[in-house]
Amino acid sequence: LDKEDNLRFRKTYLDMHFYDQSTFYLTLDAEERQKLYGILQPNEMGDMFDTLQDDLPEIPDFLLEMDVKYAADMLNYMYDDNAADVLEHLDKSHVDEFLEQMPKADANNLRGLLHYDTETAGGIMTTDYVEFNESIKAGEAIQDLRKFAETAETIYYLYLLDDHKDLVGVMSLRDLILQKPEVNLRDVMNTDIISVNVDEEQEEVAKVFRDYEFLAVPVVDHANHMVGIITVDDVIEVIDDEAQQDYSGLAAVNVDESEHDGPLKAASKRLPWLITLLLLSMFTATLVNHYEGLLAQASILAVFISTITGTAGNAGTQSLAVAVRRLAVDEIDKSDFFKLIGKELLTGFVTGFVTGVSVFLIVGIWKSNFVLGFVIGLAMCAAIMVANLAGSLIPMMMASFGFDPAVASGPFISTLSDLTSVLIYFSIAGVFISHFVGS
Amino acid sequence: LDKEDNLRFRKTYLDMHFYDQSTFYLTLDAEERQKLYGILQPNEMGDMFDTLQDDLPEIPDFLLEMDVKYAADMLNYMYDDNAADVLEHLDKSHVDEFLEQMPKADANNLRGLLHYDTETAGGIMTTDYVEFNESIKAGEAIQDLRKFAETAETIYYLYLLDDHKDLVGVMSLRDLILQKPEVNLRDVMNTDIISVNVDEEQEEVAKVFRDYEFLAVPVVDHANHMVGIITVDDVIEVIDDEAQQDYSGLAAVNVDESEHDGPLKAASKRLPWLITLLLLSMFTATLVNHYEGLLAQASILAVFISTITGTAGNAGTQSLAVAVRRLAVDEIDKSDFFKLIGKELLTGFVTGFVTGVSVFLIVGIWKSNFVLGFVIGLAMCAAIMVANLAGSLIPMMMASFGFDPAVASGPFISTLSDLTSVLIYFSIAGVFISHFVGS
Repeated sequence: LDKEDNLRFRKTYLDMHFYDQSTFYLTLDAEERQKLYGILQPNEMGDMFDTLQDDLPEIPDFLLEMDVKYAADMLNYMYDDNAADVLEHLDKSHVDEFLEQMPKADANNLRGLLHYDTETAGGIMTTDYVEFNESIKAGEAIQDLRKFAETAETIYYLYLLDDHKDLVGVMSLRDLILQKPEVNLRDVMNTDIISVNVDEEQEEVAKVFRDYEFLAVPVVDHANHMVGIITVDDVIEVIDDEAQQDYSGLAAVNVDESEHDGPLKAASKRLPWLITLLLLSMFTATLVNHYEGLLAQASILAVFISTITGTAGNAGTQSLAVAVRRLAVDEIDKSDFFKLIGKELLTGFVTGFVTGVSVFLIVGIWKSNFVLGFVIGLAMCAAIMVANLAGSLIPMMMASFGFDPAVASGPFISTLSDLTSVLIYFSIAGVFISHFVGS
Repeated sequence: LDKEDNLRFRKTYLDMHFYDQSTFYLTLDAEERQKLYGILQPNEMGDMFDTLQDDLPEIPDFLLEMDVKYAADMLNYMYDDNAADVLEHLDKSHVDEFLEQMPKADANNLRGLLHYDTETAGGIMTTDYVEFNESIKAGEAIQDLRKFAETAETIYYLYLLDDHKDLVGVMSLRDLILQKPEVNLRDVMNTDIISVNVDEEQEEVAKVFRDYEFLAVPVVDHANHMVGIITVDDVIEVIDDEAQQDYSGLAAVNVDESEHDGPLKAASKRLPWLITLLLLSMFTATLVNHYEGLLAQASILAVFISTITGTAGNAGTQSLAVAVRRLAVDEIDKSDFFKLIGKELLTGFVTGFVTGVSVFLIVGIWKSNFVLGFVIGLAMCAAIMVANLAGSLIPMMMASFGFDPAVASGPFISTLSDLTSVLIYFSIAGVFISHFVGS
């Protein structure tokens, strides 16, 4: 490639959206990437890296293949929340190497961000925001905004501080351009400030965005000093992450199984769950074993084991999913707790009763044995009620002890409910055995 | 309440964020709400209704209790996507009643929006956006923006049309304020326009926002005429809805079970799934019934039915969740299809093998019968492989036939895998029965 080609390429590349640049970048091999680093300035590379998903497994390699100074300049140019997200996936020694190449203030700023837990407001915030003293006039603010437009992650909200650097007002650019230039922002700013604390969980942050439909929210420390803002694009990532976690939890797979994992890696992520559940299911086996005498007397009982355990497990999974979802959306206090349990008991009774009657009829007619049908139906009804209750009680108890309720997965509930279903089934069968074996 | 109280209340109320106003509004009873309609102008009420969740079951009642003219004015003042969302939950006769009270143009605009499928770009877009002819200068555009600031849903993007009303450029307010007033926007606007078609599915729209991190995206019709924009707040709702649907599908519960549903209603939503799955599980029962002779010979076989069906079901649920999640994120073409199936087969083999060996050891040692252990282990391995494959094949086949893969729920896969697991189990046991019963 000669010079002119490079220039033509530069223009085409830089005219693309950052996301399209990143899609292109990911198709390159190591040699082509080196050529790209030669053609593009660190800041141009930084724009693209701002859009790259920070959890791509290749990102550490990308950084380490760059010249150290180039990488440091790029990181310094990036929005600091994204730079921190990238650095989080590197070894401490490499992080230090990059930070040493930066101006002290910027390096310390990034070090500060790296120090927050990744799943809190501090972990997703940026310090690249627009702040003014509250005494500024509207006209000046618009003038000064131009300075921020190059570096701030959003200029659509202005944060107004008093002389003690306390956050005292917020103003949107939309409201600002409606003001006369000579107006003091102090007199027109919004003082009913919705902010989040730097230690707030990211789910709580997402709730604020959902409810208030903001594009950005200020983050304050315990002394109400403003330390950063969170922008809506980062919140979309949080919502995706949370949904992914809930979903994965329900199916007992690890959140982080990626399409790039080979079969061995995928299996190694699924096996811990499977083996744990297998061990739990061995208790069910010993329970059935305990009733071997009953089974020898009436091998027909074996026919309906999987019907009862399966259906009760399905019912338990349903009530689990409803409970986990509710816990994700609302805080549940004591009085709600008993109301919900009461409701789930009744729901379990209705579903159990209807399903039990269906099974009673099916089995009764099929086997021309309505006593057997009654036993299976009664066991089904009781097993569903217990599974339903467990499905809502267990996640609520986990939440009240501070665990993530989504860890109580569907497979866990259905394996657990196998145990109680088998116990209920054989207990009831034991009582009636003389009636249905004889008939 | 006398006049002064009303005035004081008005001030306090209007100083609140719209979301806080809506929280307050939802605590009022019918009489208090009437009082509120007397105190607030339709536009002030509209700001709050813009923030109300449009799927609240009470919303139709709220509208119908208002004076028709007041409600129509409020709807007309609201952003038209939100007004359309509200009207969607009303009877056609009531919709017409409200629309008749509005200026013709506004009514027709709303009628147009109501006509789009709710889960497409057209169904979530607003027509309240900022458009200019591309020949406008930066300074004029900033001046003219003030007019839009009252009505447009966002003023942070300007859409530039040519003389044929075709969308030819986009510009952010951030870039605009960096321009000199005399610059022609035509010369500096972004012409690499990412837009969505009005018929695009809402999931696809969400992907555009995720990738490009835009705050709004233009919507065009088939002739590339601009018809509206979609803003990021509506996309957050879409992402939440989609996550909710995937999650509910995985657990075989209906998406729309709400916390306000009583036990009967909740049960009536869960029962269709449960009964369908029950009928499916009766096939498993008849299969076990078919092997009753084998069970009579060796009742020990009954002990491990639920272990094998349960574990295979868990493995199937895992691979299902991985497949559904992948389908939600990526389009999968033919070559990927076979690669994924191959990978899932290998993953199934590894998980099946490790789980099978575990069971072989546990059962062999527990029962001092390694032939029995071998039978259970082999059956477990085969059952897991089949369930794994079904868990990924079924959603992929559903997707390729145009169904939502999330409908293939975890309970469905595990109930189906009960059937294959039992078949595998008894077939293998039948071959080896003389060896482990005798020993």
